[in-house]
Amino acid sequence: MIHVFGHLNPDSGTVCTAYMAARWLTIKGRNAQAFRLGELNRETNYIFRHAGLTPPPLLDDSLAGKDVWLVDFTEPAQGPASLNESNVVGIIDHHRLGGLITQLPPEVWIKPVGSSATLLWQLMTPTIRHEISPSEAILLLGAALSDTVALRSPTTTDEDRQAVDELCSLAKVDREDFIRNLLTAKTDIVGLNADELLNKDSKMFDISGNKVLVAQLELYSLDQAEPLIDELKSAMEQRVTTSGAGLVVLMLTDISAECSRLYFAGPALTDNAPCTIAGMLSRKKQLLPWLHARLG
Amino acid sequence: MIHVFGHLNPDSGTVCTAYMAARWLTIKGRNAQAFRLGELNRETNYIFRHAGLTPPPLLDDSLAGKDVWLVDFTEPAQGPASLNESNVVGIIDHHRLGGLITQLPPEVWIKPVGSSATLLWQLMTPTIRHEISPSEAILLLGAALSDTVALRSPTTTDEDRQAVDELCSLAKVDREDFIRNLLTAKTDIVGLNADELLNKDSKMFDISGNKVLVAQLELYSLDQAEPLIDELKSAMEQRVTTSGAGLVVLMLTDISAECSRLYFAGPALTDNAPCTIAGMLSRKKQLLPWLHARLG
Repeated sequence: MIHVFGHLNPDSGTVCTAYMAARWLTIKGRNAQAFRLGELNRETNYIFRHAGLTPPPLLDDSLAGKDVWLVDFTEPAQGPASLNESNVVGIIDHHRLGGLITQLPPEVWIKPVGSSATLLWQLMTPTIRHEISPSEAILLLGAALSDTVALRSPTTTDEDRQAVDELCSLAKVDREDFIRNLLTAKTDIVGLNADELLNKDSKMFDISGNKVLVAQLELYSLDQAEPLIDELKSAMEQRVTTSGAGLVVLMLTDISAECSRLYFAGPALTDNAPCTIAGMLSRKKQLLPWLHARLG
Repeated sequence: MIHVFGHLNPDSGTVCTAYMAARWLTIKGRNAQAFRLGELNRETNYIFRHAGLTPPPLLDDSLAGKDVWLVDFTEPAQGPASLNESNVVGIIDHHRLGGLITQLPPEVWIKPVGSSATLLWQLMTPTIRHEISPSEAILLLGAALSDTVALRSPTTTDEDRQAVDELCSLAKVDREDFIRNLLTAKTDIVGLNADELLNKDSKMFDISGNKVLVAQLELYSLDQAEPLIDELKSAMEQRVTTSGAGLVVLMLTDISAECSRLYFAGPALTDNAPCTIAGMLSRKKQLLPWLHARLG
């Protein structure tokens, strides 16, 4: 059986696309099962509830010797520890290549589009699309809209727009309603403490030999995080110690004003003063090259 | 402009597919130019001569800051030193993922088929295939037949067989004649010294933290290499010192008897006695996992 899963600290893009990639493989006659690598966030819960589908179970076994299919990541640091003892048979992703070494040649489909869900939708032939139910289309739609911040992120391509149009008509949802509920769930941080906020959407990267942890929080307004900033800063300092990262970055993304405020902790960067960067919405397309230029 | 190229010590698969990948990108309206990363071997020369086409020029500039498209490899050790300063925008391959880290999300198409040429042919839409001349089809055909040892290698899939059928009819060559000339050119080692033989088709790998150089020689009969074995062994010992590899492997593949004789040099392996393995034809699919089990 092929174990299909996305990255640790799963977001909607990674969980929904893993679920649908397993479905796609199953329709193609392969024995596949989706897993998640952590608790669902509020937005992902909303999508599965709206679709009336059961989220994939938590992966808790070792992957040693197992066939696996990665969705939405290729960075070894973003997967489980036993990943390097598994046999990677396939990958669907829309991020940079992150240094993975496989034992045998896998099937790899990566494209610089806004969501892995868009690429998976493109990989589905008309016959396979015919097998996809409206509920399942909601998962792909939710993933594509979440990853592209409702098609507003600079990572959005015409291919994402086309996929969203096609999925909307298959999913039969009220588009504006669905987007509003999605963004509300995505930016809801009420009742979460600093540690939970840092874990909400955090990924580990290797940048020019530095271990870099980047936590992103998408907000309607930066004011939402204001009361927690001091607590967040000390949680970041603690994270430097516990994770062994040379740099911890907190990226507060204001999806209304379309800018990001960056906070830093750790020894890898000499200038650790916070800064706000207009137009920055994407960790992948904007923040990573920005960090690369400073750490390279 | 996108620089399109395959691995160092280029074989027919890598040079012909790089040429045609640049052609494919050009037809799709992108500005692309193919390069080779070393001298052509006798077989590749035969293919280009037969096609009446000019081989790509040698890459001798630094790739720093340039857009590049990799064909037939993703192992950083198999590319030029400046690869990690370039911007990888695309990959077409049929090998394992080799640990490459890119700056931005590239377009990646990898499939466990016998040749990158087969995958490139599959990526071509009917409209694009219509633009391919019979001479250009010879390059893809030569690449696919060379990589699969005329469809005999265990890496051969039905997709390779189908591509070869389609390309044969487009290329309008006498199939059996072409295969015979290809295999003769491929296995011709007359007049080459031990160093030239080790360079003929050699690739560097990272296997469980060990730097491993694997040189493969495809022969009609192991007898062809017999007179040179002592010279080859001392060239391998020298290569351990000059390349810094923990292990140098010489794989003499008898394509008639369908077996490989392996010679070893270097400190990474304790048992360095030569051995012959029946049925072993593929470095990628058979030797690499074999080495992985011994070095892991």
